[in-house]
This record gives sequence, structure tokens and C-alpha cells, in this order.
Amino acid sequence: MSLAHPYLLFLGDAPDALAAKVAQGVRDWRPEASVGQFRMPGCNADMRLPDMTIAEAAAAGAKTLVIGVANRGGVISDAWQSVLIEAMEAGMDIAAGLHTLLRDQPALVEAAARTGCRLHDVRLPARKYPIGDGKRRNGKRLLAVGTDCSCGKMYTALAMEKSMQARGMSADFRATGQTGILITGDGVPLDAVVADFMAGAVEVLTPDNDPDHWDLIEGQGSLFHPSYSGVTMALIHGGQADALVLCHEPTRTHMRGLPHYPSPALDDLGPLVLPLARIVNPDVRIIGCSINTAALPEPEALAYLEETERRLGLPCVDPFRQGADRLVEAL
Amino acid sequence: MSLAHPYLLFLGDAPDALAAKVAQGVRDWRPEASVGQFRMPGCNADMRLPDMTIAEAAAAGAKTLVIGVANRGGVISDAWQSVLIEAMEAGMDIAAGLHTLLRDQPALVEAAARTGCRLHDVRLPARKYPIGDGKRRNGKRLLAVGTDCSCGKMYTALAMEKSMQARGMSADFRATGQTGILITGDGVPLDAVVADFMAGAVEVLTPDNDPDHWDLIEGQGSLFHPSYSGVTMALIHGGQADALVLCHEPTRTHMRGLPHYPSPALDDLGPLVLPLARIVNPDVRIIGCSINTAALPEPEALAYLEETERRLGLPCVDPFRQGADRLVEAL
Repeated sequence: MSLAHPYLLFLGDAPDALAAKVAQGVRDWRPEASVGQFRMPGCNADMRLPDMTIAEAAAAGAKTLVIGVANRGGVISDAWQSVLIEAMEAGMDIAAGLHTLLRDQPALVEAAARTGCRLHDVRLPARKYPIGDGKRRNGKRLLAVGTDCSCGKMYTALAMEKSMQARGMSADFRATGQTGILITGDGVPLDAVVADFMAGAVEVLTPDNDPDHWDLIEGQGSLFHPSYSGVTMALIHGGQADALVLCHEPTRTHMRGLPHYPSPALDDLGPLVLPLARIVNPDVRIIGCSINTAALPEPEALAYLEETERRLGLPCVDPFRQGADRLVEAL
Repeated sequence: MSLAHPYLLFLGDAPDALAAKVAQGVRDWRPEASVGQFRMPGCNADMRLPDMTIAEAAAAGAKTLVIGVANRGGVISDAWQSVLIEAMEAGMDIAAGLHTLLRDQPALVEAAARTGCRLHDVRLPARKYPIGDGKRRNGKRLLAVGTDCSCGKMYTALAMEKSMQARGMSADFRATGQTGILITGDGVPLDAVVADFMAGAVEVLTPDNDPDHWDLIEGQGSLFHPSYSGVTMALIHGGQADALVLCHEPTRTHMRGLPHYPSPALDDLGPLVLPLARIVNPDVRIIGCSINTAALPEPEALAYLEETERRLGLPCVDPFRQGADRLVEAL
């Protein structure tokens, strides 16, 4: 799967900024990727991009309309469908990470067949993957691992990519989830890959590369999360990381979605992940911690970072508050 | 998926016993499950069951024809197809774990539709599974984990089931691979489940049960095997084991299919798996080792078992040579 740039960001009738957070991710991390935004009546989100009609976007060169808003109730409304069909008639592909699949909408399928445009459901793998073989690859790889789901792994890898590219380093964020794929236009929706091929999919995503090139791999799940630890394990072995960043959200009390599982301590993550990561790369090392301190006031956040850094002897940063430079320097 | 008993074991034109090893597994572990065998000209395998025509098998009550032989070159021959269609016309379902799917054979699909019989491709999941939740379940569970693929995990769990049932204990083998599913008539083909649902599939396979009941879960892959470790991880968390048996083949020099990965020592398996298994069950313990010594002469095998038992302080048996009684006693 590879989405054609540039994008037109479809915000639909997003009632607030949160509903359009996929669009916000694309806007924040790939500001050059979008030529404009398309908003419908009632839309209260704004990416600070030119508002465009479909015709204007097509004239501006938009190649793919990206649905950057969550749909309500799993239904793609008639109003949305008319816009998407108009976009295809103007030559744009459609991409979405919705639970409701584009390919399950007969009117969209018909329009795609008629116009030759593509429907990208990035929630589903777009190809078959091989079984992983664990062979040593050239180039360098970094993997973000976490004490839990949704604790900042994607953000960390994207922030490191930004910092590395600003220094002229050769680095690519490698997306393994829906939002990451829509941001970069490419990747593997790992949680939807068939079990036997998970590690192979990660190997395909992070192939042989130049010796000084870094793949910055978006993590998924957590070894501590009983629902998704298998996906995390496949990332650790398929990713063959040279460097690991430990991600943590310090105010969480239980595992995401599992109130009966208390959150682990950050200190327990390294000893759990390292022996597993060494199986495919004996030289792997933990280079630092990325702490999501959004729920803490600034002084507490900084005190937590300082204390954790002293205790673990590793650079500890909140990439949102402080940027990811110190993690990059630790490479 | 649940296969109707009793079976007619289809041996086709198996050139030797090895080609019919799935049938041999069913015969060895579920001797009561089959009413007869069906052999074609050129078949050199023999399950020491009555040879039956399709009509005779139907009269004897056979409910499912199980393809117990590997097909050559991934093709289901015309000669096979005629037999399978005749079996459906006599009221039997067809079950197979072949790479070539029954459902991809138009003549079989047509016959199934016409007769109302079912085609069971046990290589594919027969249902949707939920996302795992790791909630504590009643009953006891044992999981076989290994230093590698194909080192005796299925055999160990089946041998323990046999020993436990002979003692009047309440125990069920839980199949997670194709051969195991054909043996028991039920199970989850875990390597074909979509990543997000692996742990949930294992939870469905090993649900709440009586306090003194044991599920004996067939392991898959190995934490040391970069191709399949994600599947193993999902079994460890989905299985919520109370007891682990460590499985090992001591003469192997490299990981199965990966000559560039040397085999790990048995001693390294426990320390790797225990911290992960404790996440879902803090009371889990390793109760013993199951060693596949088929490649060693008897004196060397016994010496290895004795030396390993002394070194690890755990019962170490080869269930094929010695039975699994000592592992059961360790429960």
C-alpha cells in the first residue's frame, strides 16, 4: 500500500478537533503532504489549510482524499458518499482507516470501478506478506516499546524522525497502525495481519538499507498487555532493533481497556524486553525513555523526568514538551 | 469448528507411513474416533483399521471423512475428488488440513452444496474470535512451550491427557494446530488467526471450567523463533497457564528453518518465559521438561534425561520412551 500525495484532508462534519485527530496527525507530521481541507456544514475542526471544493483540490493537484475524521456510529453517510464519489470523478483515490470499510459501500465500489480510482482501507493489509526469516539486515532500526497501548510510541518515533531529518540524518518513520499509515502514506496495519506473517510483515516494512539509515518503527501494544502482546512480540523480532526507546505514561493506574490489570512500573519494561530483543540482535540497547507527561503539571512532569533519568541512568524526555533531540543524541 | 465423529480415515495413495502421519496421529491418540480406513491403489500406509468402501463406512456410521494424508504438489487429484464426492453423497462431511483448500475445489463445493455436507478446512479459522481480555478463568491450564518449533509440544500435551484420563482426572487436550484439530475434532488454527484476535482465540479455546479440570494446551512456535514468536506470546498470555512444561530436542543445532539461528539451551527457556507468563498468572510454575530424544540411542537418552533433571531440579522425561506419568505427578 502506498498512498499518492498530495492529500486533500476530508474533515466532514467533525463536531470538534478531537473527531478530526487523524487529519491533525497528518497536518502536524506531514505539513507538506496536504494541499487543502474539505469541510462540510457543521464542521468545527480546522487544520489551517485552504478550504477547497473538490474541483479546486483537483486543480491544485490533490491525488488522494484522506478521511481524517472518525465517522459516527460506523456509518458512512449519504452526504459523505456524494463528496467521495465527486472526488473520484475528479481523479482522486480515497483513503480511510475507518472501522466501516470503504470497500463495503456499494456506491463507492461502483464509482471506483467506473473512474479507475482506488479505495484504500488502511485498516486491512493491502498485500500478502512472507513468513519472517530473521536474517540480519543492513541499516539501523529503532523500535518504540511501551508499558501499555496508547502511551506515545507513534508520537515518539515521529518526533525522532523530525529531529533526525532536521540534522540531515537519514531516517524514516515506519508506520504499523492506521493513523501512522495515513500520516506517511505507507506501512503495515500489523494488528490485521494473519499471525504466521506478522514478523515477515515487519521485515518487509524495514528492509535492508544504507548503513547509516535509521528506520524508526512505530510500536504496537505492549508485552504487558495480554490482549496484544503477540503483536508486540512480532515487532520485537521482525523489527530486529538496534535501539529501543521505552515509552510510558506515568499517571495510568491500569492497562488500557483492562481495569483488572494494574499498570507496570517503567523499570520493569527493560528487563522484560531486552532478552527477547537480543535473540535477533545481540547488540540491541535501550537508548532512553519517552514519557508522556500530558496529565501532569509542568513542575511535576519535569521532576518526574529528572528523577526517572537519575534512577534508570538513561535520557528521559517528554518529546511533546521537550522535543526528541536528547533521544536522537543518545543514538 | 467441531468435527462430527466417528471418522473414516482417508489414506489415499500414501506411498509410505510418513505421508499418512496425520491419520497415524488420529489413530494413535483417538483410537475410538475412527470406524475404518479408505485406501486407494498404491497405498502403502496401514492404520490397522478395517478397510472400507464409502458405502460400508456410511453403513458403519462414519460422519466425517478425514484426509489423513499429505497431497503431492498441492493438487487434489481427480481420483481423490471422486472419492470425496462419493463420501458426501453418502452423507459424510470432509475434513482436511491441506495447504490446498477443499473450498477452492469447485467440484467439491458443488457437491457440498448439493448434499448439504460440510467442507472443513482446519487450516483456516472457522469463526471470528474476540479480542482477549486476560480475565482470570476458573479451572487449570497447562501449556507446552519449547526451545523451537516441532520439538514435541503436541505430543507432550496429548501424552499428558492420556495419562491424566487413565487416572480418572478431568483433562482435555486443546489443539492449536492442524494436526491437533484433526485428532480431537476441535480447536483453533492459531497461526491463521488475525493478529489482534490471537489471545482471544486461545481464551475461547480454554474457557472457564471446573476447579479440578485441566486444559492441556498445544504450544506453537517458540519465543526463540523469530518467525513465530508472536504466536507463542499470544498462547502464553491467552492460555493463562498455571503450569508450563518445557519441551526440547537436544540434538538440534539450529532453529527449524533458520540455519543462521543456533538452537538455544534448554536452560535459557524458563527464565525467558516465566516473567511473561506471570503477567497473566502470578502463580504459574514450571513443572517439568519433556525431551524428544528420538535421535539419541537409549543409553545416551537416559543419561541426558538424568543429567538434565539433576541440573534443573525438575522432572525430565521423554514421553515417547517413558510416558508422561512423571509430568502428571508433578502437577
